[in-house]
Amino acid sequence: MTDWTTEIEAAAARIEGHVVRTPVARVEAFGLGYPVELKLEQMQHTGTFKARGAFNTLLAGDVPAAGVVAASGGNHGAAAAYAARQLGYPAHIFVPEMAGPSKIALIRATGADLSVVPGEYANALEKAQAHEAQTGAMQIHAYDAPMTVAGQGTLMREWEAQGLEADTVLIAVGGGGLIAGAMAWLQGRRKVVAVEPQTSRALNAALEAGAPVDVEVSGVAANALGARRIGSICFDLARQTGVHSVLVTDEAIIAAQKALWQECRQLVEPAGATALSALMSGAYVPEPDETVAVLVCGANIAPDPFAG
Amino acid sequence: MTDWTTEIEAAAARIEGHVVRTPVARVEAFGLGYPVELKLEQMQHTGTFKARGAFNTLLAGDVPAAGVVAASGGNHGAAAAYAARQLGYPAHIFVPEMAGPSKIALIRATGADLSVVPGEYANALEKAQAHEAQTGAMQIHAYDAPMTVAGQGTLMREWEAQGLEADTVLIAVGGGGLIAGAMAWLQGRRKVVAVEPQTSRALNAALEAGAPVDVEVSGVAANALGARRIGSICFDLARQTGVHSVLVTDEAIIAAQKALWQECRQLVEPAGATALSALMSGAYVPEPDETVAVLVCGANIAPDPFAG
Repeated sequence: MTDWTTEIEAAAARIEGHVVRTPVARVEAFGLGYPVELKLEQMQHTGTFKARGAFNTLLAGDVPAAGVVAASGGNHGAAAAYAARQLGYPAHIFVPEMAGPSKIALIRATGADLSVVPGEYANALEKAQAHEAQTGAMQIHAYDAPMTVAGQGTLMREWEAQGLEADTVLIAVGGGGLIAGAMAWLQGRRKVVAVEPQTSRALNAALEAGAPVDVEVSGVAANALGARRIGSICFDLARQTGVHSVLVTDEAIIAAQKALWQECRQLVEPAGATALSALMSGAYVPEPDETVAVLVCGANIAPDPFAG
Repeated sequence: MTDWTTEIEAAAARIEGHVVRTPVARVEAFGLGYPVELKLEQMQHTGTFKARGAFNTLLAGDVPAAGVVAASGGNHGAAAAYAARQLGYPAHIFVPEMAGPSKIALIRATGADLSVVPGEYANALEKAQAHEAQTGAMQIHAYDAPMTVAGQGTLMREWEAQGLEADTVLIAVGGGGLIAGAMAWLQGRRKVVAVEPQTSRALNAALEAGAPVDVEVSGVAANALGARRIGSICFDLARQTGVHSVLVTDEAIIAAQKALWQECRQLVEPAGATALSALMSGAYVPEPDETVAVLVCGANIAPDPFAG
């Protein structure tokens, strides 16, 4: 069994200096009537938390001459390509068409080879696995690998070191790498609320079925959260630590995205507003004495404000 | 002579709970080759630091039945209108046409009376003064009043309490309220660099002339920094504490605005990127052992990302 505390401590030491220690804030906003702690992880390199897992994977292993390969809805690919470039390795990234122009431009800007694949994330993953088998390149999995999860786990370790007070932390879930890292670090010390779009509910469906199952994915956050099946590492940790699973509508996500701009001047992508939307919509209602924190996880919006 | 330390401490006590304690971050970015401390003051209510001075003024004085009046390039008006609404006072805001649709919409959203005046900030100020004389409303000056300066001074007090390390702090200057507050708090303990657009250089021209003088104002940041004449409080503090004055081009400001988005996912207005542009363009070059901080002061961009 993985000793996650040791793995995450090792990851934190490995990636220090390569990643941004992202800021935290406490705000009274969003019409909630209670304060919320925020972590602005969209200020991470390439605009999401994904750089943590990518750097941890590359720094922990021996990268072969064939370099690095990754499949991604877009954000993980950008982070893997960025980390590879920073460390001097070639990279080939596979993304589905739904990644969209902003994320594709972000990957292209790193100089990585890029293949845009018809379909969704799962289709890009198939192509990346074929590339791995053919070339011997090192695969950086977007969420279901111990090194990825340990890297993402450094975020919650960092937040606690920054003085996180909340009883409960709300985190958006796609394939589950970020929340797996958080659960692995917290080991039940704080309540974790997993927030998924109704139209992209891989964890929720797995918890209901008692095992990871395939779901259909669509909706405004699908190019970040649209994993067809929850990662097994995430699923096991969710069952062990008793995660609380809630679903939100696209309308709620868009309302939260708008509120983050209008009340905090933070422009984020739909996935980055998904955790907040659970509070604003009432999908998760804290107890009167329960304090809450929201992880803002990404800001690779389309169209990019400075595109063109 | 004003005891600024006492005034700013009093302001901080007065406005606590009414304003956001905005987050700070340390980043290695922007191609500088050295780290920069940032304060994300654009997360303040209504998107700029202006709420600090507005709340301090209203909470310190007896607001008459006629309420509050303010003239503003847009940002101060939004903050004054917001503070008035939060505290239950009527407000009438005068802005020049150059305020632009985002700032005008922000003021309208508070429910304040709004007059859009042809010309620039100075023209709006004339109208606001006439309104004050006629109605007895309390004028909240945008920058050249002790209560405004003391309120803005709480920002630097807060930043030091958050662990500011830099030897030198770069701050954008319009009428000089924000930098006056910083100089008033710091009393020469850190170096302060005043950054102005070449096309809106009220402080630079005053330092050159030995007294506040009128300047022409134009350029991308004019609806935030376009004061025709530097405030006398700012000018006196600048001479006493020996501010370092630099000028930047519109091109440099736009490049810094783009970099703040691309490298930190912070979308700010041109004025909010003006201080950073001095480092990126080389208008200010720190010594090899000199550490620097940049105040990010506003994000009321036009068009608003969620307008329409």
